[in-house]
Amino acid sequence: MNASSFALGLDFGTSSVRALLVNTANGHEVATASTAYATGDHGVMTSPTDADIARQHPGDHIAGAITCVRRVLELASAKGIASSQIVGIGVDTTGSTPLPVDAKVRPLAMIPQFARELAAQAWLWKDHSSHAEAAEITNAATNAGLPYLTTCGGTYSSEWFWSKLLHCARHHPQVMAAAAGWLELCDYIPAWLCGMTDLAAVPRSICAAAHKAMYHPQWGGLPETEFLRSLHPELARVRETFRSPALASDQRAGTLCSAVAAEMGLPAGIPVAVGALDAHLGAVGSGCGPGTLVKILGTSTCDCMVAPLSQALPNIPGLCGIAPESILPGMHGLEAGQSAVGDIFQWFVQKIAPQGFGHGDTAHTLLATAAQNIAPGASGLLALDWHNGNRCVLTDPRLSGLVLGLTLATTTPELYRAWIEATAFGARAILDRLAEYGVQVERIVTCGGVAEKSPLLMQIYANVCERPLLLARSGEACALGAAVFGAVVGGAHATVPAAQAAMTSTKDLVYHPDPAQVPVYRELYALYRQLHDAFGTTGARDLANVMKDLLRLRDRVRSAAV
Amino acid sequence: MNASSFALGLDFGTSSVRALLVNTANGHEVATASTAYATGDHGVMTSPTDADIARQHPGDHIAGAITCVRRVLELASAKGIASSQIVGIGVDTTGSTPLPVDAKVRPLAMIPQFARELAAQAWLWKDHSSHAEAAEITNAATNAGLPYLTTCGGTYSSEWFWSKLLHCARHHPQVMAAAAGWLELCDYIPAWLCGMTDLAAVPRSICAAAHKAMYHPQWGGLPETEFLRSLHPELARVRETFRSPALASDQRAGTLCSAVAAEMGLPAGIPVAVGALDAHLGAVGSGCGPGTLVKILGTSTCDCMVAPLSQALPNIPGLCGIAPESILPGMHGLEAGQSAVGDIFQWFVQKIAPQGFGHGDTAHTLLATAAQNIAPGASGLLALDWHNGNRCVLTDPRLSGLVLGLTLATTTPELYRAWIEATAFGARAILDRLAEYGVQVERIVTCGGVAEKSPLLMQIYANVCERPLLLARSGEACALGAAVFGAVVGGAHATVPAAQAAMTSTKDLVYHPDPAQVPVYRELYALYRQLHDAFGTTGARDLANVMKDLLRLRDRVRSAAV
Repeated sequence: MNASSFALGLDFGTSSVRALLVNTANGHEVATASTAYATGDHGVMTSPTDADIARQHPGDHIAGAITCVRRVLELASAKGIASSQIVGIGVDTTGSTPLPVDAKVRPLAMIPQFARELAAQAWLWKDHSSHAEAAEITNAATNAGLPYLTTCGGTYSSEWFWSKLLHCARHHPQVMAAAAGWLELCDYIPAWLCGMTDLAAVPRSICAAAHKAMYHPQWGGLPETEFLRSLHPELARVRETFRSPALASDQRAGTLCSAVAAEMGLPAGIPVAVGALDAHLGAVGSGCGPGTLVKILGTSTCDCMVAPLSQALPNIPGLCGIAPESILPGMHGLEAGQSAVGDIFQWFVQKIAPQGFGHGDTAHTLLATAAQNIAPGASGLLALDWHNGNRCVLTDPRLSGLVLGLTLATTTPELYRAWIEATAFGARAILDRLAEYGVQVERIVTCGGVAEKSPLLMQIYANVCERPLLLARSGEACALGAAVFGAVVGGAHATVPAAQAAMTSTKDLVYHPDPAQVPVYRELYALYRQLHDAFGTTGARDLANVMKDLLRLRDRVRSAAV
Repeated sequence: MNASSFALGLDFGTSSVRALLVNTANGHEVATASTAYATGDHGVMTSPTDADIARQHPGDHIAGAITCVRRVLELASAKGIASSQIVGIGVDTTGSTPLPVDAKVRPLAMIPQFARELAAQAWLWKDHSSHAEAAEITNAATNAGLPYLTTCGGTYSSEWFWSKLLHCARHHPQVMAAAAGWLELCDYIPAWLCGMTDLAAVPRSICAAAHKAMYHPQWGGLPETEFLRSLHPELARVRETFRSPALASDQRAGTLCSAVAAEMGLPAGIPVAVGALDAHLGAVGSGCGPGTLVKILGTSTCDCMVAPLSQALPNIPGLCGIAPESILPGMHGLEAGQSAVGDIFQWFVQKIAPQGFGHGDTAHTLLATAAQNIAPGASGLLALDWHNGNRCVLTDPRLSGLVLGLTLATTTPELYRAWIEATAFGARAILDRLAEYGVQVERIVTCGGVAEKSPLLMQIYANVCERPLLLARSGEACALGAAVFGAVVGGAHATVPAAQAAMTSTKDLVYHPDPAQVPVYRELYALYRQLHDAFGTTGARDLANVMKDLLRLRDRVRSAAV
């Protein structure tokens, strides 16, 4: 009998890095460990003078990865698994999280001269200091009639690659001048693992490049040099260091170098996959494939789907993006999402902090328990889930949250349920948009902290979306997705679908729509859409019915319950 | 030197009765006392099977009045004031609070056979058990093309006289059959004080009759017999016991009878004024007169104005009512109001109960202190104050509260301020409506618990309404208004204006509009009106600007503050 083979997934999140060791034959997760980043506030370096700044020290990523891989190997060893059985390593990180490096692929932040310089660190995905530059890039591309924004909803973001580089070039020219180039964190980590010392040879993730850096084969890769030069000459220089074409994660970045291998306690030479962004590998680890929508439900949500590259997809207005091979090789990757989900419930518990429900997780549990007993429609409340703007399908950050139907008897569990319902209606709006443009969703698989923790939310989503909701088997879907690619580059599986079939699955627990609740939610969703379109789009509408319809529905539901 | 003369005001509120002894020459309040009602929950008798029921035991009114008058006389005596110096008594009560009586003016509730019968008690103003009957009366008057609702906004209320009698006739025929007639509480109290034993001789308050029982000289008093008979024959029978014409409070109801005088410790024979409703006498006690709007700011608000009867007033849509002599003799009484003001802040403190601000008054104080430091517009929030419907100018109970502009950073002091601002915008809408119909408001005087307790609210109201706000000198404006009429019927003053000039005044403290805040509030009020009209009236409107304008305003205000 052959010894089992294992793949290692490394998942670099916002506050910590996780290592997960997985049996390539059956996806069994034999060991996992995570390490918090050491620097800043929960791993995030901030500035007292600019609240938009969020940076990370790349040394934290390196030290954290070494620590947690060593711990995983100890745990595996106790189960009789040897490091020699590890056939491949996959990597996912947050993004866009670019960092400046020198020509030998050393992060500037790890060179003494720049060690204390915020601009030399990794610019974390949620760094918003470049909002002016984002608007400038949107205007420049739009005014020039260039197609670069067609696949990302028409608006370039302050969270993305070129905005951050342009801000650095403008405000920290000495850092920009010292940088031989910039790597996404998901490109840097494999380069470090493989001991690469030539920037031009570092493979680039198509996932990060296509979603965040306006990379697309349709226009030959990155935006043309002249366009970037018109923004700033340094951007054109950085462009030249980019190894094209960008690659999907079923491709090897290289093999584990002996120096890092020694620090981790691994044999050198293990194949390392090209990196990708965490949400997209979370989709892979949850079983994303044609017809399957994966919803990653956390502080915000990310919805991922794929469609064969051979299929001509229309531009779907209101999607975050459609990018080639960003999730699976050979497939378009479709990404949508909601800009605040768990964050809204967290805001309510932390900032509004209703008395009598305790704090933190206790408050969520008690509020959900009380909200569970409220029939749909019985509160008379209706909310818009726009506390952090609307990412999809309105792609408008300049919107805000709303609740109506308030009375002198309105309670906090009723409000808590109304926030959940509002995010469910937002999720339904995305499904409706996909359906309008012919994208067939045959199956919905969820993962992420909110999906794991809130049966109430899951049941409401099933009722509102009128579809069964499955749960990914793994509680570490991103790291598992990385391990899937580790298994593929390690040769344990010939294809990604084969690796997914073997290594990923869903739980037995399925949330089915409750036929008793679906009709009321149809009425509430129609009213939600009325508000959604009234506040989120232009055009005159009559809203005189909204409050009265909610009161009628409330009275009907309450009298039926007697 | 003549001895000073004094007038006694008796103010029958929802939970207690207050007696106030006032110097008729200068309004000096020499003694006051209040007594809580003994029966039920804070004086209100409720039913486990019908949450809409709110009744009061008339024995509580009698016992309470005797107790607190005796206490006031003790306090006055200690100051060297003799009961013989009291020249007149005035009375105000809640309403419409009708109670059934026998032919000798004894409340049925005080006859053993009916003592435990809820339907035989006084039906408190906030009793809503007659909502079906109210709708029936509205439909009947409207369908018959009768004018009875023209002076009360077009809709008859479940809180009013005929709704309650019709409900009693339908559901408690034995009580209705035993009742020789029904009196408003403000008619019963003077009848009791004067020892009246002939129902047909009891003077009726024009204030209560005109605002609550569709009484108007224009159609000869109460609605015609045939109309009432078509609703129920018992209503036609009750109509026949009504002494017409109804009278203003500058008229004597009679003189204090020896039996009650003995129980109170007063000399018999003191003149007693015809009663009136508490809000209207609160306006009198605050100095209401031509050009002066009195705002009584409490759980809800009541806005009172007068205009000479010789002046032809248009029907002003959205007012609660225009009634002859309901506030001052010789004047139209105009009444408007907001259905929830203090109640909204109370709901937020009690039901939402944000942590970190304590409970009750402490919470109001701490939230107001924190809200004080928030610049207008800086929260980005905008709310509609319709938690209990909208009394004026939309006269629509089927509306609900709304707040928008919510973000993940929204705090509870910001919400607290937004609720205050929403009620201020509602107050402004009433002022605007009066101005549209040519009613000139030259001066605004406020009274009531909220006006006394919340400098933050007063300043915001001044800024939003763009007018100075005065405060009535007396903290007991209703009882003082009753005393004003006591002084008039007692002959201390020849006219009500003369009595008001002597006995009422305002405090030195005046809230002036802050020129720095007025412009921002104009912008916010325009957005409030946009929401107000969109949700409160029919007709299509474009709301796409609302959230964006609020965010722009927020950003502008915040950056200006740096």
